[in-house]
Amino acid sequence: MSSVFGNNIKVSIFGESHGTAIGAVIDGLPAGEEIDGDELAAFMARRAPGNALTTPRKESDTPEFMSGIYKGKTTGAPVCVIIGNTNVRSEDYKKINNIPRPGHADYTARIKYSGNADMRGGGHFSGRLTAPLCAAGGIALQVLKRRGIIINAHIVSIGGLENITEENVKKLIESLDGDSVGGIIECSAVGLPAGLSAGAGGIFGLESALSAAIFGIPAVKGVEFGSGFEGSRKKGSENNDAFVIKDGSVVTATNNHGGLLGGITTGMPLVFRAAFKPTPSIALEQDSIDLVTLESVKLKIEGRHDPCIVMRAAPVVEAVTALVLLDTMHGSPERKQYGFTTNQKRN
Amino acid sequence: MSSVFGNNIKVSIFGESHGTAIGAVIDGLPAGEEIDGDELAAFMARRAPGNALTTPRKESDTPEFMSGIYKGKTTGAPVCVIIGNTNVRSEDYKKINNIPRPGHADYTARIKYSGNADMRGGGHFSGRLTAPLCAAGGIALQVLKRRGIIINAHIVSIGGLENITEENVKKLIESLDGDSVGGIIECSAVGLPAGLSAGAGGIFGLESALSAAIFGIPAVKGVEFGSGFEGSRKKGSENNDAFVIKDGSVVTATNNHGGLLGGITTGMPLVFRAAFKPTPSIALEQDSIDLVTLESVKLKIEGRHDPCIVMRAAPVVEAVTALVLLDTMHGSPERKQYGFTTNQKRN
Amino acid sequence: MSSVFGNNIKVSIFGESHGTAIGAVIDGLPAGEEIDGDELAAFMARRAPGNALTTPRKESDTPEFMSGIYKGKTTGAPVCVIIGNTNVRSEDYKKINNIPRPGHADYTARIKYSGNADMRGGGHFSGRLTAPLCAAGGIALQVLKRRGIIINAHIVSIGGLENITEENVKKLIESLDGDSVGGIIECSAVGLPAGLSAGAGGIFGLESALSAAIFGIPAVKGVEFGSGFEGSRKKGSENNDAFVIKDGSVVTATNNHGGLLGGITTGMPLVFRAAFKPTPSIALEQDSIDLVTLESVKLKIEGRHDPCIVMRAAPVVEAVTALVLLDTMHGSPERKQYGFTTNQKRN
Amino acid sequence: MSSVFGNNIKVSIFGESHGTAIGAVIDGLPAGEEIDGDELAAFMARRAPGNALTTPRKESDTPEFMSGIYKGKTTGAPVCVIIGNTNVRSEDYKKINNIPRPGHADYTARIKYSGNADMRGGGHFSGRLTAPLCAAGGIALQVLKRRGIIINAHIVSIGGLENITEENVKKLIESLDGDSVGGIIECSAVGLPAGLSAGAGGIFGLESALSAAIFGIPAVKGVEFGSGFEGSRKKGSENNDAFVIKDGSVVTATNNHGGLLGGITTGMPLVFRAAFKPTPSIALEQDSIDLVTLESVKLKIEGRHDPCIVMRAAPVVEAVTALVLLDTMHGSPERKQYGFTTNQKRN
Repeated sequence: MSSVFGNNIKVSIFGESHGTAIGAVIDGLPAGEEIDGDELAAFMARRAPGNALTTPRKESDTPEFMSGIYKGKTTGAPVCVIIGNTNVRSEDYKKINNIPRPGHADYTARIKYSGNADMRGGGHFSGRLTAPLCAAGGIALQVLKRRGIIINAHIVSIGGLENITEENVKKLIESLDGDSVGGIIECSAVGLPAGLSAGAGGIFGLESALSAAIFGIPAVKGVEFGSGFEGSRKKGSENNDAFVIKDGSVVTATNNHGGLLGGITTGMPLVFRAAFKPTPSIALEQDSIDLVTLESVKLKIEGRHDPCIVMRAAPVVEAVTALVLLDTMHGSPERKQYGFTTNQKRN
Repeated sequence: MSSVFGNNIKVSIFGESHGTAIGAVIDGLPAGEEIDGDELAAFMARRAPGNALTTPRKESDTPEFMSGIYKGKTTGAPVCVIIGNTNVRSEDYKKINNIPRPGHADYTARIKYSGNADMRGGGHFSGRLTAPLCAAGGIALQVLKRRGIIINAHIVSIGGLENITEENVKKLIESLDGDSVGGIIECSAVGLPAGLSAGAGGIFGLESALSAAIFGIPAVKGVEFGSGFEGSRKKGSENNDAFVIKDGSVVTATNNHGGLLGGITTGMPLVFRAAFKPTPSIALEQDSIDLVTLESVKLKIEGRHDPCIVMRAAPVVEAVTALVLLDTMHGSPERKQYGFTTNQKRN
Repeated sequence: MSSVFGNNIKVSIFGESHGTAIGAVIDGLPAGEEIDGDELAAFMARRAPGNALTTPRKESDTPEFMSGIYKGKTTGAPVCVIIGNTNVRSEDYKKINNIPRPGHADYTARIKYSGNADMRGGGHFSGRLTAPLCAAGGIALQVLKRRGIIINAHIVSIGGLENITEENVKKLIESLDGDSVGGIIECSAVGLPAGLSAGAGGIFGLESALSAAIFGIPAVKGVEFGSGFEGSRKKGSENNDAFVIKDGSVVTATNNHGGLLGGITTGMPLVFRAAFKPTPSIALEQDSIDLVTLESVKLKIEGRHDPCIVMRAAPVVEAVTALVLLDTMHGSPERKQYGFTTNQKRN
Repeated sequence: MSSVFGNNIKVSIFGESHGTAIGAVIDGLPAGEEIDGDELAAFMARRAPGNALTTPRKESDTPEFMSGIYKGKTTGAPVCVIIGNTNVRSEDYKKINNIPRPGHADYTARIKYSGNADMRGGGHFSGRLTAPLCAAGGIALQVLKRRGIIINAHIVSIGGLENITEENVKKLIESLDGDSVGGIIECSAVGLPAGLSAGAGGIFGLESALSAAIFGIPAVKGVEFGSGFEGSRKKGSENNDAFVIKDGSVVTATNNHGGLLGGITTGMPLVFRAAFKPTPSIALEQDSIDLVTLESVKLKIEGRHDPCIVMRAAPVVEAVTALVLLDTMHGSPERKQYGFTTNQKRN
């Protein structure tokens, strides 16, 4: 367990919410990939706080590239991206230092790191660390899009409500009164060929790689592919997807398998859902304890917090998915087909 | 993606359903651990087919140890365990060679391996590969139990029915008439201390490691920790677990977090659920295609198949969980506390 | 540190010299590769003991494949190869159990594994473990040869003598009188294109991967590429290799760089040398101690031992090199060029 | 192959010689370690250019910490260290863009990265990248020193001259007249206990881990442990190290094994040597080709270059060694003994 993931493309995430900067190093990107800065900024804006429905905290979150990009293209060397922490109000967090916030990593990090973790604002476990994930994943999304692979995440439910309109979300959030809600995000990737998994594949396939990465997004507590948990309640005859020919290609009539059989893509859309718990930071009074005196205390979390991070989480899910899929294709026998640079020559 | 998992304890799974043998190499086990052969056999019997409710196929599945165990104890060198494939009836599978079975890896493996995969009986993707997982995990369970860590998986639902008695399971299965059902298994680990994750922890914590491994079990399509998907429908005030003092220790009043915050153990029981899809092998007629002629065909799968693998999957979930937790403890700063052998000496 | 190596092709070595069996699992081999059993047997015979110059101990060392090969071709699933330990005379080793043999891992393994290591015959640290390395590497050699890449290791010196004929070796070994000699092996790989390193390459390139693997061969204490240690004594003007055009291709006039610049192949032959220490098992009396009584003892090692393992080590170096290069090509953007199977298809 | 190394402590190196910045992320450092900034600066100054004997190029090379250090101590979260590139004169390199410099990665990187690599000043393959290695390793050295482990690298030979005094070095370098020299550095680590290797150890032990990392230092072309290549010319009776008791402890009378048997420490000083090729950048005219026209050209490298980087390389070798040893101890069953923080608690 670490803040590094990936096999052929390794992403190393660093930073603490109220430290100097957060960022990522992406090692193993193919060379010669154009990076569209505006597109990246627009993508990161989807994650950024500040719109009406989410936290009023304003972060500029402009990614600065230290390396790996030259004349607008990837060089093949590791890309380091840095995002400064400029809008930090640590005093909001100071007084609750010995009182772990329910649902946060305050207590577990305190024990694991013997009190040395910089947990101001959630420290390294803050949702703020999803910004470098988006910067790294935003690059991967551009590389994939260029090869016809489109990744899209959307909200399935918020606070238990499904098919939910923006108007309804607004009402729901206004009604929370200091409380918070979670939700479910569904992500799909289309344009993947059949037969894709990294290396020679095996027992631990794409579901393993994707779930490991998605569970790294703060607040994710569940991941399911295709019909997932609901599928476990069906009969085999209902859940199996019949193979059919459509426009001369092998497809399945339904997609309960979520685009993966044996951890390998079928060519159908890859589909999974991630469950986000409600934001643990709520303005309501909660029961906790003082870890020094071991006395019960009533805790009221001050500061500005998102009553619902689900809207902002959609691009994060896309970003992480893109990194895993790019890593998979990079480590795949079939990657030439995607047009990755290949210039070896025999003498 | 491969058939190897783990960081400090690496498990390499091999074998095909109808090949010579299946097995596992477990690299990195601590030395000096007594292995109780009877206990291991009893554990593996829970997974073995042959009881009334499951497949009539009889497998002896006796694990033979090639290395790493001497005088009944682990030596510290890699343990290789082999399970022969003795009861193979390949002819059952021969006729459907060009017709991919819905819900199986036949189609994806055919493409990925260019028709070279030995897919008789599901090949390397067969549920039979859970036998070496159990042999490897059975050792890990013994090592953990000796240190006060108990892992237990039980059935939460089968075919959508919850709180289900053995009598009901029997009735359900008898009523299937060639169809199949899936189900949900819940697994818990008690006895873990607070503050546990591998290495220095980080963004990709225990949920990541566990889910990656659990999704490697054939037929798993969903994993959730604590309140999981249901928790995403709650309010923060409902889902947050209050910290309280009980018998002088820090615990939480509820366990919606499933024992993990920030990917690190809280000391509460670690709890997760895995969704198993219904067995894709059913006796009912299904739509598929002939991959050579690209014509639609009606497929009827012959042979003996489990109408429900959920009962047999519980020990597999325990086994995989044990391997991940042992790996975690092994790579943890705190592992001395568990009494692992440590004999270095300074001159 | 473990007995597993490789990134996209992972080789897991297991077994102890006097245990039930030794072997290897090779995870990640490309599918559809024909394996010539006779060629593999002939290759392994080069490593086997029993010829006039080396140990009289006879081992059959016939590799048995448990998985991953079907109808003479790789299936894409992990290959497990087992070699039984049939000719074991443990009594030779019993009496010196508490007396560590100089130059062996007896002492260090005893401490690390708290006395639980099965060190009969050197246990997991025995040179015998090079047999599964050869079985695994023998497969890799065939895969590479099919793609025009030829790996060849030869003896540079034995006992300090260079350009040494077989006649001289014979004389040298006969003159040893219970003592032993080491030597230096040079290995080259021709047919590699320019521009090869795994993934996106980086600071830790092919020298890193190769040396890590080669140092895993028992008795290797040094590795150098190209002009190596001798090159460090030259001037830049002498050691730099001029770029020239030859037959329309870019080559270098000399090959002091050993085929690697920046950890990436230049297209010139990849050349490195490995230094093997003299066999630590000698028939002469040596000073050691009894680890129980801590008293000084005179140790005389009984049993049959190679006075020089260098001849038998050449195929081992080839095998390990082949595994590293195949792994490199497998994880390389350029691998399509080598004709690896690639059957993904877009719908 | 990548710019990431380590297992439990992962170091990710980034940056290009003439890009915005170079740096490193160190993931997995133990928490609560005090970092002495003055000591780190003094250590890095040993590597910095600017003294009389080496390059006149002046770099400030002040490391700035973005994360992972709070109140002067490690937090347990990843440490990111950045070093700005302030003194860049790219024009020196521009004119030779299509003419690969002999002994450099210009040609191989050009092919591998299809001309997209930013190779100004050597790009990601520049010796400048040893600065972040030193920043990362400087932290590791402090952590190890606190536990009684001292790492020291010194020059064994320069330009083929051994036992060389500073006066002689000065004379040698002044006499080079545009040419360059290489050399050999010996590194030792004392204070290591017997029985140390990461995890359960195995065939690929400390020599493998150390050599892989050391070969990542630019210009290293050889690594040998203990008597190394010279040992391969000895007899077993000469090269074996007798075990003796000294002051009540088990030691060896000599140290030809370099502190490692079976890839595990013996408790004797760990000793290895690294061969550095002569600096490939020389002021003398060299033969090369124009990669566009494929015509032969005479190349004369302008700009400021070290005629000998061996003096500056000693701290780099120490830094890399410290990172590998800290990683080893971190992943070792025995790490508690070293006083690493451990605060897990059972409820």
